[in-house]
Order: sequence, then C-alpha cells, then structure tokens
Amino acid sequence: MSASEEAEKYLSRLSALTIEWIKRGEQSDSLVSRWASSSQLRDNVTLDLSEEAQSEDALFDNMRSILDNSINPYTGRFLDKLYSAPRPIGLAAENLLSTLNANGHVMSASPMLCLAEETCVAGLAKLCGWNAEEADGLTMPGGSSSNTLAMQTALQNRFPAFRKQGMLGIMKDLMREGTEINACRPLLFTSAQSHYSLDKAAMGCGLGLESVVKVPCDAQGRMDVAALERLIIAAKDGDAAPPERRGVPFFVNATSGSTVLGSFDNLQAISEVCQRYRLWLHVDGSWGGPVLFSEKWAKLMSGIDKCDSLAINPHKVLNAPLQCSFAVFKRGSSLEANSLDAGYLFHTDSQVGIESTSRSRHLARRENPGALAYGCGRRGDALKLYLLWNRYGRRGLGEHVDRGFELAQRVADLTSSEKYKHTLESGPRPDPLFLQVCFRPTTSLEEFRRLRKDEQIEALSKCTRHVHATLRQRRRFAVDFAPLPGEIGEFIRLVVHPQTSFTDLADLVQDIAIIGAEYFRTTFG
Amino acid sequence: MSASEEAEKYLSRLSALTIEWIKRGEQSDSLVSRWASSSQLRDNVTLDLSEEAQSEDALFDNMRSILDNSINPYTGRFLDKLYSAPRPIGLAAENLLSTLNANGHVMSASPMLCLAEETCVAGLAKLCGWNAEEADGLTMPGGSSSNTLAMQTALQNRFPAFRKQGMLGIMKDLMREGTEINACRPLLFTSAQSHYSLDKAAMGCGLGLESVVKVPCDAQGRMDVAALERLIIAAKDGDAAPPERRGVPFFVNATSGSTVLGSFDNLQAISEVCQRYRLWLHVDGSWGGPVLFSEKWAKLMSGIDKCDSLAINPHKVLNAPLQCSFAVFKRGSSLEANSLDAGYLFHTDSQVGIESTSRSRHLARRENPGALAYGCGRRGDALKLYLLWNRYGRRGLGEHVDRGFELAQRVADLTSSEKYKHTLESGPRPDPLFLQVCFRPTTSLEEFRRLRKDEQIEALSKCTRHVHATLRQRRRFAVDFAPLPGEIGEFIRLVVHPQTSFTDLADLVQDIAIIGAEYFRTTFG
Repeated sequence: MSASEEAEKYLSRLSALTIEWIKRGEQSDSLVSRWASSSQLRDNVTLDLSEEAQSEDALFDNMRSILDNSINPYTGRFLDKLYSAPRPIGLAAENLLSTLNANGHVMSASPMLCLAEETCVAGLAKLCGWNAEEADGLTMPGGSSSNTLAMQTALQNRFPAFRKQGMLGIMKDLMREGTEINACRPLLFTSAQSHYSLDKAAMGCGLGLESVVKVPCDAQGRMDVAALERLIIAAKDGDAAPPERRGVPFFVNATSGSTVLGSFDNLQAISEVCQRYRLWLHVDGSWGGPVLFSEKWAKLMSGIDKCDSLAINPHKVLNAPLQCSFAVFKRGSSLEANSLDAGYLFHTDSQVGIESTSRSRHLARRENPGALAYGCGRRGDALKLYLLWNRYGRRGLGEHVDRGFELAQRVADLTSSEKYKHTLESGPRPDPLFLQVCFRPTTSLEEFRRLRKDEQIEALSKCTRHVHATLRQRRRFAVDFAPLPGEIGEFIRLVVHPQTSFTDLADLVQDIAIIGAEYFRTTFG
Repeated sequence: MSASEEAEKYLSRLSALTIEWIKRGEQSDSLVSRWASSSQLRDNVTLDLSEEAQSEDALFDNMRSILDNSINPYTGRFLDKLYSAPRPIGLAAENLLSTLNANGHVMSASPMLCLAEETCVAGLAKLCGWNAEEADGLTMPGGSSSNTLAMQTALQNRFPAFRKQGMLGIMKDLMREGTEINACRPLLFTSAQSHYSLDKAAMGCGLGLESVVKVPCDAQGRMDVAALERLIIAAKDGDAAPPERRGVPFFVNATSGSTVLGSFDNLQAISEVCQRYRLWLHVDGSWGGPVLFSEKWAKLMSGIDKCDSLAINPHKVLNAPLQCSFAVFKRGSSLEANSLDAGYLFHTDSQVGIESTSRSRHLARRENPGALAYGCGRRGDALKLYLLWNRYGRRGLGEHVDRGFELAQRVADLTSSEKYKHTLESGPRPDPLFLQVCFRPTTSLEEFRRLRKDEQIEALSKCTRHVHATLRQRRRFAVDFAPLPGEIGEFIRLVVHPQTSFTDLADLVQDIAIIGAEYFRTTFG
C-alpha cells in the first residue's frame, strides 16, 4: 500500500473518532475527564509497546482509548490552565504541518514555513510599534523557551565573554574593569509574581537562582517600579546591598499578564528605568501578550515600543493549538550573537545578503533561522498563528480578547455579588481584570470567626483544596488553585477563556460556594 | 457553527488537498520543490496577515499555496537532511495530538499523553539494558534540547552550587576545595565530529565554548578513546595542559551516529574511562540511536548499559513526524535536581509517593513531568513513537533500520564501483557504514592532476558546490554537501533513508557523476 493510501485510510478512520469525541465534549452533560486522579487511571488503563506489528483494528482501539481516557477540552469546562480547546482552524494548521513535515531550521528545507514565521514575526513586531524590517524572531517550543532565548541573547550582547568563556569569562572581564569581586556577576530583575520560568532560565543558563532579584509588587500584582530602581542602584553599589544581592544588572523582565493574578506591569515606567541604566528590557507576554490585538486593551502594554524583546504565546488566549510561542526581538541583529557555524547545515544563498543594508542582512539571517537559537531542528509552529490570524483577522482576534475581559468581569462581579456575600471571598484583583478570577469559599460561622488570623487562613486554604478535590471527583469542571501573594493562602484560580459560556461559569461558582459551605458546616458547625 | 462542525468541514476539505499533494509527490516525475532558491520563492510568493477575517475559500487557497510551494518529501527524493517523509501512522498521531491539545507538563492535564511518554521511556530504557523502573525521561523539542537537558542535569548533580550560584558558585566551591584558580571550571569532552549542539549547549548553559574539549577522531570518525583519557588527565593536571584547557572534567558526550559520516563511538571503551574518572557519560544518539531496535545492529551501541543518559530522535531514522526526541536517564532521580517549586502548577496527588520505594518515587515524579526540565508547557510528542512502535512492533522498526544499512551499502558499493572509477571519489567511510554516503565527482584530466594537493581540494570542493547548485536548479533531487574532517574539502553527503528506492539513488549517483564530469571538462578540458 502506498503512503498516500495508508494515510487516507488512517486519516478518514481517525477523523470519525476525533470528530465524535469533540461532539461528545460539546454535549451539556459531558464530563471533562473519565478519571478523578492519576492513580485511578493507572488502576484501569495500561499502555504497552508490542514486539510485533499490531493490526489496524488494535491500533484504532488504542487510539480510541487514548481519546476516551483524556481530558476533553471541548466541554468548555476545562478551566484549569492558561489554554483551552483549540480553534478548528488550528486543527487544520496542525494537519498541514504534519503533512509537510518540514524542518524550520533552514529555509531551503521549509521555504513556506519560514516565510510564515517571518510574516508572523513582522506582524507581531508591528503590533509592538517596532520597525518590522529591523525586528526578527522565532517560534519557540513554549513561553519558557522564549524567555530563556531572550535572556541568552541579552547575555551574549551585553557580555562578549559569555560566548567563549561563559560566566567565568564575564567575571574576569568585570574584575579587570574594576568591579569588586563579590559583585562580579550578572543580575536580572523580575517581579515577585512573574513566572517561574525566569528562575529556571537563570538556573539553566549558569547564572543561578541567586542572580534573580525579585522586585516586590503592589496590591494589584504589578511590579513596584520605584523598588526596581532602588534594587538596581543597591546592586551596583557594593555597600548598600547584602553580598548576595551585589552584581551587575543586565536584564529586566516585565510581565504582561501574570500567571496567577493576570497583572500587567507598567512597561512605560519600567522602560524609563531600563533606559536610565542601559538594561535589556524583556516582556514576558506569554499569557497577556495578545491584548496587543485589541483596540481596547492594547493600552495595557503601552510602552512595549521601548522594550527589547517579547515572548507571546498564541496557544493560550488566542486558542492556537499547543505549542505556539514566539520570541520577538526589536533588533533582529541581536540574535546573530547566538549563531555558531555548522558547515554541514547552514549555507548562504549567494543571491542574498551581499549588500549590507538592513534588508539584505535580514534576508541573509532568514536563510538559516535555526542558527539564531540554541536548538537545531524546529517545528513550523508559526503556521498556526498565520492561519489563525487570517481566519479571524487582526480585528477578530482583538474582539476575542475583548470578550474574555468582559466575561471575566461578569464572573468577578458574580463572585463578589450580594448572593455570595457570606460564602465567597475574592482574592486581590488587578484593575482592569484580565482573564483570571481568584476567589474561595469563606464562612461567617462563629467557630471560624473566633480563630486567629493564621488559623483562618489555614482553614480557608484547606477548604479551597477540598473544593478542588471534590470538583475533580465530580469531573464536570476542571479548575486549579494557587497560593496567592501576601501569605493569604490558597485560592481557586478560575481561568476564564473567551469561548467559555457564562452559564457554565455561573454554575461552577455556585458549586464552589455550595461545596465550601458544606465543608465549613462539617468542620465548624 | 459548533467547533465540531467547523473542524469536520475544515478537516475533510483539507484532507482532500493533503492526500492529493502526497499522491503528487509519489509520482515518478514529481519535483521535490517548486523553486530553486529562496530568492526565487520570494519573487513569486508573498504571505500576508489580514486585518479582517478571510473567507473560507481564501483560507483554502492559502493552504493550497503553502503545499504547492513547499518541499515535497513524499517524492522520496528529498535526501538532504536526516529526516524524510513521515510514516502515515505518524500523521494519525499528529491529528490525535492536536485534537487532544493537552499539555504534557502535568499528568492531571494530559493523563494519556503522560502515560504514553512514560511507556515509551520505559521501552527505550529496556533497549538500553537499564532498569525501567529506575530510569526516567522526557520528550524534548529536538535532539539539541535533549543533549542540553543531559548537560544541565549533569551539572546539577555534580555541582550542587549550580542551582543557586551558577558557574560562579561552582568556581568558589572548587577554589575552596583547593583547585587552582585557572582550573576552576567544568569541562566537557566530545569528539571533534560530534554535533554542534554540544557547543551550543555549553554556550547556552554559561560554560562557554572553551569548556568544550574536542577529542580527535580516528579515520572512521570515531572518538579516539586514548586521546580522551589523555585530555582528561591533562585537564586535571594544571601543568600538563595549556591554561585554556585546564578545568574539572564532569561530562563526556559520545556520539552514536555522527552527523556527517554516521560514525558510532565505542561506548564500551568510553564508559570505562568515564567510570575511572567518575564522569557523566551521555550518548547523543539523536541520529543513530534507533539501531537499538535492530537485532543485527544494536551492537554498534554496545556499552550503552553503562551510560548515564541518551538522546534519541524517532523523527529521524524511524520516520516519526517532526519533532519527536527523547532524553532518557538511567537514574530518573537525577532529573529531580532540575525541579523548582511552582505552587500554582505542580501539585502532588495525595495517593502517590507516600512510600519512599523507587516505584512510588517514580510515580510521584511522573505526576509533574514538566518539573524535570527547563521548559514548562510541553507537546505530547511521545504519542508519535507510541503509535509507531505499535504499528510496526519492535521487530518491524528493527527491520526498517536493517533496510537502511543494506541500502546505504549498495549505494556506497555503486559509487566506488568500476563504473565510476574515474568520475567519483569516496569520502572516509565508517565500517559498518550507517545511512550516509559521502562522495564527490573527481576527474583524471591532465590539467587537474598537475595541480598542487590544496588546489585539487579546492577544485573538487568547487565542483561539489556546483553539483549541489545544479541539482537544486533541476529540483528532481535534494541532497546536501558538507565539509569533511581532515581538511579534504567538501563532499556530497547523501542521506539514504530506509524507504528510499534504489533506482532513485542510482539515478542520483549517475546525475552527480555526469554533472561533475561536465564541470571538470569545462574547467580543465
């Protein structure tokens, strides 16, 4: 049988299964998950690898079992994470990608995927107010990778020794320049509520966790910009900071849409500080970056034109399929510092890059996009944003973002409404509210009110965990919990995706209130 | 329209396009590519992002244009890279993955994908002769990422300071232990012919390129193990090595299937050296790792049972779709050093990990596989190997590998046969030969023979580039060239994929000989 015949047979047979599964998810009485826990799954499902080829029927039984035992995001009630069901055009994009099976490392192997990447990067750069011809960027396998690439690129550009001698070379250079020995290390600054990938990146890049200076946040979860400046000054002035906080600031990460509260740092104010101290300003917009598509909400990232790089994940708010993340750089030439020669792979097209204009340099760079990052082979994930953008238009994607804001506000209004005055309490809320609503059950029972503050917090956190576990048992909704800043314990973090139905959200809020009230009655009643 | 209806419509309409495109590729007169260069493509094709939503017809025109202007691997004549057309079951796996759209970072979000990953990791560990219950591993977005994770994990386990203080902390600890200041840096060893991702990883991890000690190779491209030991000893002994080669050895990378020649390092001999000096031994089997599936050729990786970690890419030799790469670790617990707490994401299932047996520790770790690496969100790429393995069985995959070896040997025999005695010359060849055949046109014309050796090499390299360019113009075959070790200039590096037809390969060899002869006649005739 030819590959085309086998592919045709598989895809048509599989498509019947997947469409049926999506439809099952769309039914109002569907469950998000078949199992309430991993141990339950393990008790009931085993996967095996066979020594001999399996029959087609056995393979399809296998595929059906994978569908049946997975989380079904098409229920619209998987509100647990920062992604949800993909848009149908995304499924088409994935099919196209897997059919092409082209590697995005060099343009000669994947001409159209590279062109799609370049087009999307230029489109994103324009949304940032950057010169699209000078900007450049890449899809990366996730927001963490995009943040890491920004950090590595900043290190390469700020410290020439990083390339050959690594951190030790940087230290030697700084000592030679007269920096005090205990301050000879690069420091990066990020808010206390930023994503843990900044810590992981610092660890993975050989900086170490202590090179990450956590800047306090205000009550709405935004970086305190005055504190940022104080910490920068203190780090540079050997005497003012404790030894472990001394160093050479080189990088600031601002967050557009924090992971728990959904806060947006003030890019305008932070960029002024960064210009003053000549620091690379990266924006982790993995979650909130898509506000750039919205006419109404792009203002939350006002100042992005003065930043150096941006991570943005269309696989979250915009519902592209996983993974679809971009690292975009205002000065594309800064990425060249990451390149290494690889004679067997990277060739230059003799027709491009001869003139040293910024356009021809851009074209030369785009011949071998893989050279600009730290991986080699790459999936052409940009195609997903390319088709999504054209399916809905910039305007449609912006309106999608707007719907999310409206819906989240409605849910927030509900949780703090008269109806739930005695049974739910709200977590801190940024203004305007992005797509997360944090709240938890509370109680006015006498026995609870008599507890010390810390005991109350513990009781509320316990109840939150109980609610989470109960919802997981019921399997109608999936929702996560998280500890909130300020030592106030754990809250339900409800992620309101723009496509969610308000009725479902209202049902969930009610379930949470009822489960919580029942818990408190049993515990304190 | 519901998501299921829209998906159904898109997928059936797109499927007609993709199957037609695959069929077109399968025709004997098909071209690998529509365009001969990126500049030609750029002159003829433009991609745009629209402000308003596009019509369905416009979207499908767009998708058709992406297919029409891409490389078609189903021709079987794309022999340019270490991957080729994916197996049809791979396309099914990708469809399933994109439908599920589940994130592999935590098991609660992607129970079946995490189980598939765990099952494949155990299967690969068994092929290595490791204890599957103690081993662990992850899919990574490519072989470079797998190699990088191994390096980071080795750093974390060997140097506890890496986590918090990074390279500077390592240096301070080493100085405190009495290491001479100029030798206070971690060194890794890899062969001169290993993949450039080892250099990139060292750069990205803050070690710097100078921390990579390149070990010379023998004539077949295998690491010279005696030289490895000499270099290790010299690095540790301050006086014997030049200052830039002094340091603390911690990691050796052995290559199973080198990028250009396809050589396999002697794992048995290297592992003895590593045990002697207590060094982490990683195997980059991104390309050659699948020999483990073959009863006949697994011996090329004999000694793998004594290694610490393995990178293997089923998206290359085994024709899973891009990307499908695994990093597997003999001691899964070593991965725990990479973890960071993230209260909003990583929760522990109260039912697992209570007992501290190796099984329960394994289960606890598998609740949050994302915590073991440096990214956060992950695509469930293991599903591709899982379905591929069951479609063909271990035996079928092994036979696939065997076919590749046989085919490559036939091509090598042809290029060095009587027929091409005067027109082709062979590059260095490992014994046994893996899937690459390196050769180039040569000539016995008098004017060429009178040239100095270095002039001959230059002329031969120029001819190789000319052949490459001519084939690109003709677009019937895609094949790459690479500089070979030993300053012998550039050669055609033909990648013989197991599914390639011998007739096509013989035609290509003939084309190369004829184009070369014509070039030499014009130049020297």
